[in-house]
Amino acid sequence: MNISPTQDAADRQFMARALQLAELGRYSTHPNPRVGCVIVSGAEVVGEGWHRRAGEPHAEVHALRQAGERAVGATAYVTLEPCSHFGRTPPCADGLIAARVSRVVAAMRDPNPQVAGSGLARLAEAGISVRAGVLEAEARALNPGFIKRMETGLPFVRVKLAMSLDGRTAMASGESQWITGAEARRAVQRLRAQSSAVLSGADSVLADAARLTVRAAELGLEGEQAELALVRPPLRILIDGRLRVPLAAPFFSAGPSLVVCQQLPEHAGAYARAGAELLAVPGVGGRVDLPALLRELAARGVQELLVEAGARLAGAFAQQGLVDEYQIFMAACLLGSSARPLLDWPLAHMAEAPRLNITGLRAVGSDWLISAVPAAPV
Amino acid sequence: MNISPTQDAADRQFMARALQLAELGRYSTHPNPRVGCVIVSGAEVVGEGWHRRAGEPHAEVHALRQAGERAVGATAYVTLEPCSHFGRTPPCADGLIAARVSRVVAAMRDPNPQVAGSGLARLAEAGISVRAGVLEAEARALNPGFIKRMETGLPFVRVKLAMSLDGRTAMASGESQWITGAEARRAVQRLRAQSSAVLSGADSVLADAARLTVRAAELGLEGEQAELALVRPPLRILIDGRLRVPLAAPFFSAGPSLVVCQQLPEHAGAYARAGAELLAVPGVGGRVDLPALLRELAARGVQELLVEAGARLAGAFAQQGLVDEYQIFMAACLLGSSARPLLDWPLAHMAEAPRLNITGLRAVGSDWLISAVPAAPV
Repeated sequence: MNISPTQDAADRQFMARALQLAELGRYSTHPNPRVGCVIVSGAEVVGEGWHRRAGEPHAEVHALRQAGERAVGATAYVTLEPCSHFGRTPPCADGLIAARVSRVVAAMRDPNPQVAGSGLARLAEAGISVRAGVLEAEARALNPGFIKRMETGLPFVRVKLAMSLDGRTAMASGESQWITGAEARRAVQRLRAQSSAVLSGADSVLADAARLTVRAAELGLEGEQAELALVRPPLRILIDGRLRVPLAAPFFSAGPSLVVCQQLPEHAGAYARAGAELLAVPGVGGRVDLPALLRELAARGVQELLVEAGARLAGAFAQQGLVDEYQIFMAACLLGSSARPLLDWPLAHMAEAPRLNITGLRAVGSDWLISAVPAAPV
Repeated sequence: MNISPTQDAADRQFMARALQLAELGRYSTHPNPRVGCVIVSGAEVVGEGWHRRAGEPHAEVHALRQAGERAVGATAYVTLEPCSHFGRTPPCADGLIAARVSRVVAAMRDPNPQVAGSGLARLAEAGISVRAGVLEAEARALNPGFIKRMETGLPFVRVKLAMSLDGRTAMASGESQWITGAEARRAVQRLRAQSSAVLSGADSVLADAARLTVRAAELGLEGEQAELALVRPPLRILIDGRLRVPLAAPFFSAGPSLVVCQQLPEHAGAYARAGAELLAVPGVGGRVDLPALLRELAARGVQELLVEAGARLAGAFAQQGLVDEYQIFMAACLLGSSARPLLDWPLAHMAEAPRLNITGLRAVGSDWLISAVPAAPV
C-alpha cells in the first residue's frame, strides 16, 4: 500500500509521541519491553498509554481505555507489534479489533522470530489496515535487551567503565575511589536501574565493598520515574569463581543475589541463608564460562546486563566479543603510566586493535561520558 | 569614566570584529602578536586592518590607511594596546594621534610589564579618550605564546598527543602509524603552522622518520591563509641528548633545524653543513634541562611551542609542570593493555593525580579532539 507524504509525516509525528511514552517505562517494564501507544482520531490524540510493569496492562490497553468510544475508526500507533498471544494479559491485537480501530501503525515487528508478524496478520485478517517500520531504528534503540534476547538468546551486555583522561581505572595498588564526580555516579545509578541485572567480579566487590544497589537518594530521578525505578531492582550478580567473597561482605547484606562460581561448595546452605543463589558455570582454565553464563541469564529473562567490573573481568567480556556497548565515564585527570588499564586485553599489533563507533559523547557534571559500540568487522 | 550600557555593547561588538581580523594572522605574525583593528566613525566601520607578518605594517596602520580622512574624530578598536616604541615600524600610538582619532578602545594592555600602559598613556596625554579591557579574555586567548613569553620569559607549551580510547599511543613494539585519520592529521598540520616552533625527541624521529614540516597539501587551508601559513614555517627542534639521530634521517633533509644535545660533539661541523644548529643544554642525569631550554627558546622569540613527542619526552614536560595545554586526538579504537601509555609518568597515589580542565571536545573526522589545561592546584 502506498503511503502519501502527508500520511507518512503524520505517522512519524504520532509514533514519535508513542516512543516518548514508551520511554517512561525505562526503569520498570523488565522483563517486558518498553512500549508506548497513541490513539489518533482524525488528527486528534484521543488516547495515550505506556506499559509500566510486567503483570500490569499493556500500553494499548491504557490508550484504548482513555480513548473509549473515540477509538472506533481511529488509528493506533504502537512502538512494537501488538501481541497476539495470551500471556499474563489478553492479546492486544484482540483488544484493538474489539475497539474497532481502522488502522494500526507499528514501529517494528515482534523481534521473536517465532511470532514476528502474527499480531499484524491477525489485525489485517480482521480488516484493519496495518503499517510497520515507522521510526523503527528509534524503537529498536528503546529495547536493546529485549530485542537481543529474542533474536539471539543472549542479553544485551553494557559495560560501564570509569577512567582518567589517560585511560586508567585505578592506581596500581587498586586505589580507585572518586575518580568521577557525583553527577557521573547518579548516571551510573540510572544505568543500574534500567538494567535487568548488574554484574561484578570478586576483585571489585572485595576492593570497593561494592553493593551494586540502586539507591533512591542518588538516582537523580523524580516523581513516578523514581518510584518505578525502585520497585523493580536489578538482579545483583557476583562472579566469584573460587568463592572468595565472604558472606559478611556488604554485598550480601544488601539483598538477594546470584553468585556464579566454578563448582558448588559444600557449604552451599550458608549462601542460601544469606539470600544468595549459587550457580555453577564451569569453564576452561579455572574461569567461569561467560558465554554459557549469558545464555543462562537470558533464559532467566535478563535482557540488559550492566557489567561493572575491573579491568580483568571487563577485559574478559571484551576479548570474548561479548560486549554490545561501552559506557565510559572519563574524568579530567591523569592517573599516570603505572596505573591500571581500562581493560586487561594485551594486543601485539595494530591490525588486531578493535575499532569502535562512538555513538555519544556528552558532559556529565565535570566528567565526560563516551558511549561506544564495537564496530562491525571490515 | 563611566561607560553607558549602549556604548559598552557597541564597544564589544566592534572589538569582536577586531578579534576576527586579528585571527587572520594566526599562521603568520610570529614573533609578533596577532592584532586586529577597526576604525568606527559614528556607527559606521570606515577602516579595518590586521597584522600579517613581522616587518610589515601593524594592524592600526592598515585600518587608518583604509579610513583616510574619516579617521578624524573616529574610535579605533585594537585587540592589543598600541605600541609606543620604535621597532621595525613607527609607534602605532603616534599614528593614531596623527590621524586625530578621538577615542581608542583596547582589548588588553601590553603584556610586557615594562611597557604596559605606556601606549595608552601616550594617547591620553594627546587628549584621546581611552578604554582598555573590552573582551580581554578573548584577546588573551588569541596570543597565548606572546603573552606568556612577555609575562614569564617562557614560551606557551602545547603538547599534541594521539591516543586510542583506552589512552594508548602505540603498541609495545612502537608500531603506531595511522591511529588517527586524515582530518586529524590536517588539524595537526594547522597546529604546527600556528606554532613558533615544533619539537620532538630522538625516539619519535627515529621510529616514525618524522620531519615535523608544514605541508601545503595537508593543511586544509585556502587562499591567503594557506599562503601565509607556508611563508613562515615553524622552527623544527629535535631533542637528541646523545645525538643518536643520523644526519641522513629525513628530518635533516627537510630544512633548517635546531638540535638540542647534552654537549657539543667533535663533529659539529657536519651538523652545520646539514642545516642544523647545535645547542647544548646539559641537565642532571644525562638529560637535557627542559626549563633551561624553554628559557633559551623564549629568548630567541619562540612563543608557541608545539611538542609532538613520545610518551617519555612528553611525560617529562608534563612531570616538570611545563605543559600549558594538551591537544589530545582520540581515535575510536582500543590498543590494549600492553600498549604504550599516553605519558610516561608513574604515580603511586590518587592524591598525586594531576587534575585537568577540559576546555574543548569536538569531533575531527572520525576522531575526537580533547583540549585540556592543567587545573590550578587546589
